[in-house]
Amino acid sequence: MIRVGIVGGTGYTGVELLRLLARHPEVQIASITSRGDAGTDVAQMFPNLRGRLRLRFEDPAKANLKSCDIVFFATPNGVAMEQAPALLDAGVRIIDLAADYRIRDVADWSRWYGMQHASPDWVDRAVYGLPEMNRAAIRNARLVANPGCYPTAVQLGFMPLLERGLVDLDHLVADAKSGVSGAGRKAEVATLFAEASDNFKAYAVPGHRHLPEIRQGLSAMAGRPVGLTFVPHLTPMIRGIHATLYARIRAEADFQAVFAERYRDEPFVDVLPAGSHPDTRSVRAANTCRLAVHRPQDGEILVVLAVIDNLVKGAAGQAVQNLNIMFGLPETVGLQQIAVLP
Amino acid sequence: MIRVGIVGGTGYTGVELLRLLARHPEVQIASITSRGDAGTDVAQMFPNLRGRLRLRFEDPAKANLKSCDIVFFATPNGVAMEQAPALLDAGVRIIDLAADYRIRDVADWSRWYGMQHASPDWVDRAVYGLPEMNRAAIRNARLVANPGCYPTAVQLGFMPLLERGLVDLDHLVADAKSGVSGAGRKAEVATLFAEASDNFKAYAVPGHRHLPEIRQGLSAMAGRPVGLTFVPHLTPMIRGIHATLYARIRAEADFQAVFAERYRDEPFVDVLPAGSHPDTRSVRAANTCRLAVHRPQDGEILVVLAVIDNLVKGAAGQAVQNLNIMFGLPETVGLQQIAVLP
Amino acid sequence: MIRVGIVGGTGYTGVELLRLLARHPEVQIASITSRGDAGTDVAQMFPNLRGRLRLRFEDPAKANLKSCDIVFFATPNGVAMEQAPALLDAGVRIIDLAADYRIRDVADWSRWYGMQHASPDWVDRAVYGLPEMNRAAIRNARLVANPGCYPTAVQLGFMPLLERGLVDLDHLVADAKSGVSGAGRKAEVATLFAEASDNFKAYAVPGHRHLPEIRQGLSAMAGRPVGLTFVPHLTPMIRGIHATLYARIRAEADFQAVFAERYRDEPFVDVLPAGSHPDTRSVRAANTCRLAVHRPQDGEILVVLAVIDNLVKGAAGQAVQNLNIMFGLPETVGLQQIAVLP
Amino acid sequence: MIRVGIVGGTGYTGVELLRLLARHPEVQIASITSRGDAGTDVAQMFPNLRGRLRLRFEDPAKANLKSCDIVFFATPNGVAMEQAPALLDAGVRIIDLAADYRIRDVADWSRWYGMQHASPDWVDRAVYGLPEMNRAAIRNARLVANPGCYPTAVQLGFMPLLERGLVDLDHLVADAKSGVSGAGRKAEVATLFAEASDNFKAYAVPGHRHLPEIRQGLSAMAGRPVGLTFVPHLTPMIRGIHATLYARIRAEADFQAVFAERYRDEPFVDVLPAGSHPDTRSVRAANTCRLAVHRPQDGEILVVLAVIDNLVKGAAGQAVQNLNIMFGLPETVGLQQIAVLP
Repeated sequence: MIRVGIVGGTGYTGVELLRLLARHPEVQIASITSRGDAGTDVAQMFPNLRGRLRLRFEDPAKANLKSCDIVFFATPNGVAMEQAPALLDAGVRIIDLAADYRIRDVADWSRWYGMQHASPDWVDRAVYGLPEMNRAAIRNARLVANPGCYPTAVQLGFMPLLERGLVDLDHLVADAKSGVSGAGRKAEVATLFAEASDNFKAYAVPGHRHLPEIRQGLSAMAGRPVGLTFVPHLTPMIRGIHATLYARIRAEADFQAVFAERYRDEPFVDVLPAGSHPDTRSVRAANTCRLAVHRPQDGEILVVLAVIDNLVKGAAGQAVQNLNIMFGLPETVGLQQIAVLP
Repeated sequence: MIRVGIVGGTGYTGVELLRLLARHPEVQIASITSRGDAGTDVAQMFPNLRGRLRLRFEDPAKANLKSCDIVFFATPNGVAMEQAPALLDAGVRIIDLAADYRIRDVADWSRWYGMQHASPDWVDRAVYGLPEMNRAAIRNARLVANPGCYPTAVQLGFMPLLERGLVDLDHLVADAKSGVSGAGRKAEVATLFAEASDNFKAYAVPGHRHLPEIRQGLSAMAGRPVGLTFVPHLTPMIRGIHATLYARIRAEADFQAVFAERYRDEPFVDVLPAGSHPDTRSVRAANTCRLAVHRPQDGEILVVLAVIDNLVKGAAGQAVQNLNIMFGLPETVGLQQIAVLP
Repeated sequence: MIRVGIVGGTGYTGVELLRLLARHPEVQIASITSRGDAGTDVAQMFPNLRGRLRLRFEDPAKANLKSCDIVFFATPNGVAMEQAPALLDAGVRIIDLAADYRIRDVADWSRWYGMQHASPDWVDRAVYGLPEMNRAAIRNARLVANPGCYPTAVQLGFMPLLERGLVDLDHLVADAKSGVSGAGRKAEVATLFAEASDNFKAYAVPGHRHLPEIRQGLSAMAGRPVGLTFVPHLTPMIRGIHATLYARIRAEADFQAVFAERYRDEPFVDVLPAGSHPDTRSVRAANTCRLAVHRPQDGEILVVLAVIDNLVKGAAGQAVQNLNIMFGLPETVGLQQIAVLP
Repeated sequence: MIRVGIVGGTGYTGVELLRLLARHPEVQIASITSRGDAGTDVAQMFPNLRGRLRLRFEDPAKANLKSCDIVFFATPNGVAMEQAPALLDAGVRIIDLAADYRIRDVADWSRWYGMQHASPDWVDRAVYGLPEMNRAAIRNARLVANPGCYPTAVQLGFMPLLERGLVDLDHLVADAKSGVSGAGRKAEVATLFAEASDNFKAYAVPGHRHLPEIRQGLSAMAGRPVGLTFVPHLTPMIRGIHATLYARIRAEADFQAVFAERYRDEPFVDVLPAGSHPDTRSVRAANTCRLAVHRPQDGEILVVLAVIDNLVKGAAGQAVQNLNIMFGLPETVGLQQIAVLP
């Protein structure tokens, strides 16, 4: 059994990790920490776990995380960069679900995240945990930077086109819509039910922190810097991201076949038949990304639709997928939940 | 492997049965029928099943249901009473998720459901499939009448009190709130998003079809007819029932202990600590009923709160639980999904 | 023009007051205060008011509220009791939308609200602002205690029965469901979209602060203390309260006629035809209470259904109704908005 | 008083027209027709209108629409083209809220709407009822084709840029999100609460009927044909459209000033300050379009955000605005409702 620790398990990413790991057959949850809720029964905070998990939040200062084989950081940005190095030095492998190790350009990271990086040397050694892009490197990684939710959807949607140079790289548009759980389990007025329900809005149009992450990934696929306009929106649902991607065609191809072929062997990417419109509920609570590709009126613009559950393929599920890869397990172990519909 | 057939799998109960049975380790889905959608790939109608189930809806006239060990009827009321007898005679066991065999008094059934019963002789032989009440009889049943969603929540909530004669039997009140999926996957104006969202209403206050079913069950627990006022409401959520139950205390007891003791060995009933308020999401997509018991201001009125997922413990999950009992399997096989929260 | 001041206008009650008062033909909003947001353009915080209201939040210390004819307190509990007396002494009339002056028994108030009362002498002089009960007293009141949202719905629903002594007074049950805006515009985890959406729960079953207020009102109607069980629930909608009321019949009557007659001349209470089920959206954004009365199966229990918009008839609209009464205006001035459906 | 008739008032556009016209001071609703619901009290179908409107649906065959000054068609596509000509010939003015007279190219209309046009001669004489574009022509129009909901938002968002030739005309992108009421009050599975709630999806990506309407309008503004990719989405809210528009800059300008200037005198278009993100609730139940313009990272792509209430500025409210213009009334009469927030 793989001994797992979780740092900071009181957010939505944390409870989703627990939902998945509690039934993972190869994993034992050794410790979960919380500064503010140490001593609290986890199942009291998250009653869906009653009877399925006997665990209390531990004081981070007292938890013996170094005895774990792997530790997940489900913390706000800026925590893992402080605490991960000591664990890494002790031989513990790390998956950080926050943004600390996602951006290779440390100066750029500092600009977007508004803080100095505490362990810039580990940034180079971190592997960006998008299995469909980096599976081989993840296998032996000591430190995995688990992708953000928007970046997962947008990168999977553009990847087949960029890898094969089929579209104009300078004017990519990603119009993305997220459920409200993406904002986290933080007490804030803007995400109250009475504010976010029956309402729709764009936000952070001048610049969202996921922009540099997406741009870095797309540029890697394309082999040169890309131009990207990224507009995130808040939509009144709990879970789910729907990315609508626009690209101008540069080279003709059977785009449906391009997608089908690229993802043929991917266990968690599902290319829908031509003409389809994926809905977010078709992946609710599942680790799947569903994609559809359209060329409206046989014109110059290609439209890709990509849906994920932001808490699963966009966070905790992808983290478990990375764990499976890192420990040589079949990639789908513990991740075979069927989406909940309706 | 148990060979399973499903009659009428295009509704919400049907897709939920498929979600559960597709991953049930002891079951093989041999056939699923639909009059209107014969030939359609099941996963095309329900894309959450893509890649998890290779099955087409079959024409009921052509399906070889008699080769099944058990057949679920996930049909509108009035279908099973016509079609189940031939299968029963052929030795197939049946679980009817509709109401055809739930009410022992056939005349009463006809009055509430507005049709003559086609197989009244089988009504007597049917076992009411509430495991917490009838587990022994279910084990050997040939025909199980799977309880309705409201009846499951209300009966589990009142059961410990009625069995022990602790409350006034003549003025029970069940104020129940259901998610909209309880109305089924039927094209109707009243359950459109733009009608049911951001809205709350009672319905069927003069008399709901689940009233005689609940009254029959409560009367059996109490050992004599009970008086019950049952008011169902539609609440703007997809899944979930919350029953708020009111009873006047007749005999003093440690009510918390009464509930805890009654359900101590039940795998799917969770009695919360004193002072708790279960929320429906704590059982979303899981086969659990969570209960809390309150005595406000130490007064004469006991308040019981009961939550279930109407499509799981209130329908498909309970049906699978019954299957497990009927075939001698551990009762929780295939039913260990953790509720999806948030 | 009546000069109006508003203390504490940054909550939902505040913005709703502004929506109503901005178009009230007899009113001029002279000042609105906010400690935390002094200097902010009101329409920047509440963009629905852009172009309709030119006003900035003022520092409470600097606002000249004494020049107003009337001041609304849209503040948390405990503010009006401190600040209202000085204004009252200066001849300003007051409508407090919080709970400070609602409960006549000051000791009881202190117990439920957890604080000492700062101006208990004014409690006796305050008039409880339920126009359907206290219209005459409101007319000349210097200080009106505007009712709570639950109390408005529950009292209007029970009133005709209690005034005429038609039901058992000892075992009244009020099962009430509220939209999430009832919890206010406060940053709290429990009312986040991702917590409250697609979910339903009871809360405060052991005792909610509106219980003593309701009990006081019902007892006044009945002429003696009543026994009441009150269970509030949170339902995933923004606005609206649905109260489902249960009472045992003590005297026969034509209950439909009793309700119709009682509210015949009330401009804001609408008794629906027999057999109706009011939905909350039928009063969304309007100052109306709609009622229906049922006697299921001609039994002993009467069921009353009452709906209001918690922010209008349950708060700001009722406050404007009280203003109209206090200043001798037609009661419906500024309150003729038709409910928004769908 | 202007005598108004409404043909087909049982849909969402119909009830919204009634909500607005019932309080319009210059209008008298003379007749409302419905084939299926003739004889029914309007307020029974739409209880928000109880006490505010005494009217029954009339049999279209018996209604005396020719005595009206103006008739609104709130009917499915294809009805007005049959029935409007006779009324027009009788001197009645017409506002068609459906699509019959919106597309000047009748062959193109037939292709998109799948039917022959019954009165193509009237297409030429119809005026497209977007006041911000066609105010002068609307004034004297006998027949106004009221714009669709998506076209209203998209055209108002692009108009200042196209009129002044500031952007690339060949690769415009309109990513639009609509509340579910946009699908109408029709019994359909796809728009059931349990299907559309907690879910997000694109639809009609290969081609939506509003595409030719939008393209026609944008081309008129630009003075030559434009290239447009239009992707509509369904978002789980009742009302509201959010259009996110992307255009490549061709000529430098102070874009904020361009928008502010273009709409300075428009009573129903509100240009937000630079950096803003309008939310749909800020126009809920109001006839306003709010706009914001962004240039992310000072790049080549301009992003315009436009929100309307699809049932008001996107349908019934714009129709009333057109009525006001046609009859020489102040344009805002009867349309001064403040948006309902929260």
